[in-house]
Amino acid sequence: MTIALPWAAAAGVAGVLTDLFVVLLAAKLGDELSKRLGQPGLVGEILAGVIVGPSLLGIVEVGEVLEVFAELGVVFLLFWVGLETRISEMREVGRRALSVGVAGVILPFTGGVAFGLAIGESAATSVFLGAALAATSVGVTSAVLLELDMIRGVAARTVLGAAIVDDILALILVAVATGIAAEGGVDPLELGVVITLAFAFLAFFALGGTAVMAKRPQLLTEPRFSESPLLPAVLICLGLAALAAQIGLAAIIGAFLAGLIVAETKEQHPIEDEVAPLYAFFPPFFFAFIGIELDLGALADGGALLLLGAVTAIAVVTKLAGAALAARGMKREDARVVAVGMVPRGEVGIIIASIGAAAGVIDAEFFAVIVGMSILTTLAAPAALRRAGQVPP
Amino acid sequence: MTIALPWAAAAGVAGVLTDLFVVLLAAKLGDELSKRLGQPGLVGEILAGVIVGPSLLGIVEVGEVLEVFAELGVVFLLFWVGLETRISEMREVGRRALSVGVAGVILPFTGGVAFGLAIGESAATSVFLGAALAATSVGVTSAVLLELDMIRGVAARTVLGAAIVDDILALILVAVATGIAAEGGVDPLELGVVITLAFAFLAFFALGGTAVMAKRPQLLTEPRFSESPLLPAVLICLGLAALAAQIGLAAIIGAFLAGLIVAETKEQHPIEDEVAPLYAFFPPFFFAFIGIELDLGALADGGALLLLGAVTAIAVVTKLAGAALAARGMKREDARVVAVGMVPRGEVGIIIASIGAAAGVIDAEFFAVIVGMSILTTLAAPAALRRAGQVPP
Repeated sequence: MTIALPWAAAAGVAGVLTDLFVVLLAAKLGDELSKRLGQPGLVGEILAGVIVGPSLLGIVEVGEVLEVFAELGVVFLLFWVGLETRISEMREVGRRALSVGVAGVILPFTGGVAFGLAIGESAATSVFLGAALAATSVGVTSAVLLELDMIRGVAARTVLGAAIVDDILALILVAVATGIAAEGGVDPLELGVVITLAFAFLAFFALGGTAVMAKRPQLLTEPRFSESPLLPAVLICLGLAALAAQIGLAAIIGAFLAGLIVAETKEQHPIEDEVAPLYAFFPPFFFAFIGIELDLGALADGGALLLLGAVTAIAVVTKLAGAALAARGMKREDARVVAVGMVPRGEVGIIIASIGAAAGVIDAEFFAVIVGMSILTTLAAPAALRRAGQVPP
Repeated sequence: MTIALPWAAAAGVAGVLTDLFVVLLAAKLGDELSKRLGQPGLVGEILAGVIVGPSLLGIVEVGEVLEVFAELGVVFLLFWVGLETRISEMREVGRRALSVGVAGVILPFTGGVAFGLAIGESAATSVFLGAALAATSVGVTSAVLLELDMIRGVAARTVLGAAIVDDILALILVAVATGIAAEGGVDPLELGVVITLAFAFLAFFALGGTAVMAKRPQLLTEPRFSESPLLPAVLICLGLAALAAQIGLAAIIGAFLAGLIVAETKEQHPIEDEVAPLYAFFPPFFFAFIGIELDLGALADGGALLLLGAVTAIAVVTKLAGAALAARGMKREDARVVAVGMVPRGEVGIIIASIGAAAGVIDAEFFAVIVGMSILTTLAAPAALRRAGQVPP
């Protein structure tokens, strides 16, 4: 008889509960320290993940449960951002966001592919690198904009829209890259179906969903199973996130749409107060998980560090240039915020790198470089955005 | 290139998000239907789990992520119950709860072991059966008492205290049973350590934790990482749940203690409003998961059904008798509520059965019988409690 853990079934649960506790505690301690040093909390949360993760202390590992909590973290984060946004405001910036998004994909993608080929990588690896560089992190950028209280401005909404366009384009590029890696080519008909499906999903829920909800806000309060509109709203969020993921888009795009839809009932319900605790609970897992995914060991030699520096430089320069080009004509300050706001990479870049790793075209070093680049561009974002937006510290 | 899901990494996430969505949606539809039929929501949530689970539709399977969500469901449920309870109120009923709990273990355990031996099962299997019969479901009972608005009465608190005593005793019995199964015997010294550890944990946090929090309620609001006391409170909950699980107690005992501790700050903080959304989000997974775990196939022959009937009858009669015996001297109505309230089995009984299954002494049929018995005693609980407490429907 063993004393500490006499039963196997309970041992699994005990381990998972301990992991969740350790990650949340570490994230919040990092958040606390960050804020005391005048930095945004997410910087501390990511670094806390690096510390408790395999890179340093090794208390927690990458595993399915933590991955799901991280995913729900970014899902509830984007749901929250959607709640803070109105579809009418997105329409105002629509055209600009589209051009910033497209320009913000073309340059980094081309830069990434060219760099990959130049250092002698295969076509497939280079395309994955390009796609990972193309994806702006909606999660990171909007968390920073929320923390700096800039989320409601024209610039923030443009970044948001452009980042979503980015994510869709990057994921389409990945579909193409996966096709090339697996079958040596892409069927243009199938590709057309993927693209049509993506935009149809977006248009259908962004326009149709918000219109229905604006007309019948009582949809959220009619069910008897809930004394508040919270669970109906959460079901819309999870449902659209799952659907987006099922059709090959990022789950966060569905979550953002769900937020936009539910936001149409804000006059009737105190929905943000209800969602706030979920928004407080889950997102720290997302940021800590980025840190946990970092493999410092794979970056611990000169070649890898050089690669990290080069990739990060390309990521910053191409995105700044592309976004700035497309933001011409906006107010000077707004254009600056847009360009800087597009720089952070995060969840989608890392997802793309994981897909490449699973397909065998992104090796451990390249994966570590992409995660490292995401973290560097993320850590730099708060100070850069504050500066670009001339927000007092 | 596959259209629907072109990448492996995203596919895993899409599947999990879909599972979570399906389970939550099904649970809430079951809840809705239940309430429309005048039944408590959890009845519908459990049946919804049976429907979407492997027994009928087979849309979702038992898996690690759902198991963790179910566990967090019962953890947040007991945290909520703890928040609704004051340590001073628990002290009032302490002695009575202890005697009800002890009596409520001795009879069902003896009955279960005797029945197991009588039908020719091994000693180890019989001990596991007895232990599974001994464990009252704090989760189910308190959810029913919450739904019937009876949670604050003397009877409810007695049931709660007794159920916790039950769970501890049942888990100690399992430690003994596991020891017998694995090594053919139990070291009394080691057993003494397990028991001492359990009661020391309970006493230390119930008395020490509440005293500290009553004196320094600002502990919950001092951290800068949270604008509200929510996350500090959730960290206490997860931390004590993980610790309880690590030392071999049920996680829910830690969660209940955490609720008791945080409840000491209720005069200062609107903590229940903050926790309410987490309490709305997670527990449906717990109830649905009980239904998902049911294996109707294993119960689909006459022998298994007979076994289920016999085990359920023993479970009801022995628990009613034991609790009623110990509840003598209480007000008549309270004594009835206590006796009936102790009957539902649930999470801990199923945990014990899983441990037995992992140890190879509980086979698939017995496991299905124990889950079936838990579900039957749970489904009967609301109507029986309502009647015992003379609550108008």
